[in-house]
Amino acid sequence: MGGKDSPRSDTAILLISCPDRQGIIASVTRYIHENKGNVVDLEQHVDPGEKFFFMRIEWELGGFAMSLEAFREEFQKAIGEPFGMGWKLHSTAETQRMAVFASTSSHCLHDILSRYQAGEWKVEIPLIVSNHETLEGAAAAACVDFRHFPVTAETKRAQERRQIALLKERRIDLVVLARYMQVLSDDFVNEFPERIINIHHSFLPAFPGAKPYHSAYERGVKIIGATSHYVTADLDAGPIIEQDVARVSHVDSVEDMMRKGRDLEKVVLSRAIWSHLNRKTLVFRNRTIVFV
Amino acid sequence: MGGKDSPRSDTAILLISCPDRQGIIASVTRYIHENKGNVVDLEQHVDPGEKFFFMRIEWELGGFAMSLEAFREEFQKAIGEPFGMGWKLHSTAETQRMAVFASTSSHCLHDILSRYQAGEWKVEIPLIVSNHETLEGAAAAACVDFRHFPVTAETKRAQERRQIALLKERRIDLVVLARYMQVLSDDFVNEFPERIINIHHSFLPAFPGAKPYHSAYERGVKIIGATSHYVTADLDAGPIIEQDVARVSHVDSVEDMMRKGRDLEKVVLSRAIWSHLNRKTLVFRNRTIVFV
Amino acid sequence: MGGKDSPRSDTAILLISCPDRQGIIASVTRYIHENKGNVVDLEQHVDPGEKFFFMRIEWELGGFAMSLEAFREEFQKAIGEPFGMGWKLHSTAETQRMAVFASTSSHCLHDILSRYQAGEWKVEIPLIVSNHETLEGAAAAACVDFRHFPVTAETKRAQERRQIALLKERRIDLVVLARYMQVLSDDFVNEFPERIINIHHSFLPAFPGAKPYHSAYERGVKIIGATSHYVTADLDAGPIIEQDVARVSHVDSVEDMMRKGRDLEKVVLSRAIWSHLNRKTLVFRNRTIVFV
Amino acid sequence: MGGKDSPRSDTAILLISCPDRQGIIASVTRYIHENKGNVVDLEQHVDPGEKFFFMRIEWELGGFAMSLEAFREEFQKAIGEPFGMGWKLHSTAETQRMAVFASTSSHCLHDILSRYQAGEWKVEIPLIVSNHETLEGAAAAACVDFRHFPVTAETKRAQERRQIALLKERRIDLVVLARYMQVLSDDFVNEFPERIINIHHSFLPAFPGAKPYHSAYERGVKIIGATSHYVTADLDAGPIIEQDVARVSHVDSVEDMMRKGRDLEKVVLSRAIWSHLNRKTLVFRNRTIVFV
Repeated sequence: MGGKDSPRSDTAILLISCPDRQGIIASVTRYIHENKGNVVDLEQHVDPGEKFFFMRIEWELGGFAMSLEAFREEFQKAIGEPFGMGWKLHSTAETQRMAVFASTSSHCLHDILSRYQAGEWKVEIPLIVSNHETLEGAAAAACVDFRHFPVTAETKRAQERRQIALLKERRIDLVVLARYMQVLSDDFVNEFPERIINIHHSFLPAFPGAKPYHSAYERGVKIIGATSHYVTADLDAGPIIEQDVARVSHVDSVEDMMRKGRDLEKVVLSRAIWSHLNRKTLVFRNRTIVFV
Repeated sequence: MGGKDSPRSDTAILLISCPDRQGIIASVTRYIHENKGNVVDLEQHVDPGEKFFFMRIEWELGGFAMSLEAFREEFQKAIGEPFGMGWKLHSTAETQRMAVFASTSSHCLHDILSRYQAGEWKVEIPLIVSNHETLEGAAAAACVDFRHFPVTAETKRAQERRQIALLKERRIDLVVLARYMQVLSDDFVNEFPERIINIHHSFLPAFPGAKPYHSAYERGVKIIGATSHYVTADLDAGPIIEQDVARVSHVDSVEDMMRKGRDLEKVVLSRAIWSHLNRKTLVFRNRTIVFV
Repeated sequence: MGGKDSPRSDTAILLISCPDRQGIIASVTRYIHENKGNVVDLEQHVDPGEKFFFMRIEWELGGFAMSLEAFREEFQKAIGEPFGMGWKLHSTAETQRMAVFASTSSHCLHDILSRYQAGEWKVEIPLIVSNHETLEGAAAAACVDFRHFPVTAETKRAQERRQIALLKERRIDLVVLARYMQVLSDDFVNEFPERIINIHHSFLPAFPGAKPYHSAYERGVKIIGATSHYVTADLDAGPIIEQDVARVSHVDSVEDMMRKGRDLEKVVLSRAIWSHLNRKTLVFRNRTIVFV
Repeated sequence: MGGKDSPRSDTAILLISCPDRQGIIASVTRYIHENKGNVVDLEQHVDPGEKFFFMRIEWELGGFAMSLEAFREEFQKAIGEPFGMGWKLHSTAETQRMAVFASTSSHCLHDILSRYQAGEWKVEIPLIVSNHETLEGAAAAACVDFRHFPVTAETKRAQERRQIALLKERRIDLVVLARYMQVLSDDFVNEFPERIINIHHSFLPAFPGAKPYHSAYERGVKIIGATSHYVTADLDAGPIIEQDVARVSHVDSVEDMMRKGRDLEKVVLSRAIWSHLNRKTLVFRNRTIVFV
């Protein structure tokens, strides 16, 4: 009883973006069908204002008549180029490699490692990076390499360069900022476009920046939130992947909001990671399409 | 900025169910494309246990090369029959006709009429049926014909026959039970398969039957709910279209639950109606597929 | 089975604010007890940062040894003054009088009138005010006086003065802005401190001002909201009474957000009105205490 | 900025249940006030049907004129007996001792240990009990003693007796069943009345018993839930402490529901534990009062 959301182990996933016009779905599905691919999932979206088309299509590789290498070449000529497509092909047989950046707060890291150890996601986590040593034990308990990069205003640039080198050496596909609390430089961000996911502890765009729970308390909101987004050069303004909220009231102090917020943060971050790992996200005009 | 969920005024919607096999999407989309139909929305689902395929596909009729009558004939031959499809074709140019059955509770009826008067839905409401006269004024204010059918155990069968005749005479497509509080006979239900929507004032399958708020209070639940479903011969067991919930606590009396529940009931019912009117629902094995 | 939240018909409600110190609850409850008042509800809150105390206490008037007039005098001397209290005494026997201001959107007004006609709230609505004539029929159907005050930049001030006079003449206790879409002048606001409730169609402080659904769409949020607040001179910045949210995704156009948002707006506004009418709100430092 | 929900380190908490009558709050608060106790929190509830009174009152022990031992004796004579009260006195200086029972599912245990290591709760966890060895490593990583009690139908009774002896030897105050998957005998349950908390993976009373996600899938619900409750002799029917829900749709397989459900289960269980540890729960007629 596989289920749409259950990662399949031997399928191809094609993500497509292009200007909308007639016949895209027909052409793509026919191409896959003619090569003996059995489509197991297809989702598409048309941005009505921008007349732009998006699709995620997944088919079984068992019985598929082409290698993925051949597909990459042939599909571009036959379909990609004529339709002016941007597209990416992924195989669910590949295991993505994810690095987690943390600071001193443990809840998001613990939550990620708990899922990792339970095998909830198809992912490899070869590396945890932190500017403090606080969470070294958590990494050790999960048998993940922990690397300590202390950061000061003076050393930040140099440390980032070392981090980037390390991430490349370890062939990291996705960087997750699990309450890392450091603003990454544009240079760092540009190295991993749409491949860094952050969790912000407010319902963005409300309360960007530091101390959002304090601001929420001051404003007297009745609901707090958490937001997971791709990191861009513009702080807390990247494309939102997932948000969720919890009720608060006058009885909740800032500390109570933080406590309730931690449960939001870890779940919202994990849902965003899940969508990314399952190739369900596309970014367009600083907004996301997140297929279900 | 049309938007996926905004009803378009001149499109065709095709709903398909059939055993899953390769090439269905390719065949259908190619057929529409070759007849100059511009697909504006496509959603599909495969039931993984039953290996059954479902699709909703919508395309613009402007420029489409066939009449809907011709399509009905040709498509069946070319695609429907070979794939063993069950399918229905709808045109968004048609306005569906909906009858509302109510009793003495006004909140669902008022909510429906408020949306009707504001033009939120593309629907005609030619008729309100009730076993009491309480809501005659609400019908009058919205200029909808109100028909009073008092019901006793003795007259129920005869009254139902008169109601069925009236619904047919008025060419009613959809019957909405807006807290009607009467159990319909199997004969009535069988006249309108998958075309009667009920709102039950609990989170089914918890608390079926009468007085669900009293039962919820007795059990001490912390969340109450409402459930909208297609009516089948089996009371409160029909395929669920939509559900929603609200928090309660020990401070809430049965009356408080009823008050909070009314706001759930009216919104849940209206969402189910909306999905049905927009041809987004399919029923399979007493479950629904509700496309978004 | 009365229930905490069910309005009782013959109780007194005392709302208290004062600097926190020992013995407040003991003194107040003893005073009421000694005068044969049976307390049916008590809620208190201490603002931990500001060391300020708040309480709502409700007791049965049947058997109470004092008239409310006598209580007002005696309590102030015995308790209010020594503790430096601000306090208000209300009787649930009094029916509050509420005016609704609307413009052309009908959903909030319809929802309020639906509750009014069903007797959900203990309230009198003698008056609906609008800058358009669109909703005159809705008022008529509910037998509520409808007054049309067309507003232009030039006439706004004069019209407001006439509105204020009318509200006073009709002894209005509470003004509800049900998507009124006009910014009230400071003079108007100051006439009804903490007695004007507005519904804003976003999750404040995100997206204040005009066109919040357009802004939400542009930002790509995954959740939209609505906020009900007391109106202050500072637009959209008054103390928040109630908020709620709904999920959206990339498939939702601005129009879809508006549709989903209307259901939020009407429910959030009605919950805020309910809390106000039941004397469950206190304002402190631009935040609300909303007892349950 | 302490906040109502932030555990205070040197306060007394008195939980009271008794038949409702005039003067209870006045008498209790006066008694505490006369002994120089500064009340920092008071919540009360009257069950309207049963005319029963409940209260949680918390006051600072700094400056309080009595020892807790003296209070226990004196209060009973002065107030408890005359009012026919059941009452319990707790000191926040005491650290409660909690044992966690787990089986093979790790998410709830990991979540609890994550909070434990982060110091989120004032609690000691001296012991993890399991019928499998799967989670021994998780216990070790958190430096908690892990005890393996394999259970078969034959050995169950004997193993339970050994478990009870161990729990008593370790002076365990609270037993948490973190997806333990074994039904406890009445004898076990009776040893720890209102001191065993279970998490059931459905929105009770819907889908009691085994395989609730399979049942939810079969019924086609649009929302799944989790329920935390005190364990009684009647399986899955004990007083509910906390519930929460998540949306599902036709795209979710049983496995997807399980994945979404795990996030509910761990958060709902942790909220229930938090309420219990903070002495915010009272049980009456198989329902809970959970103060906020």
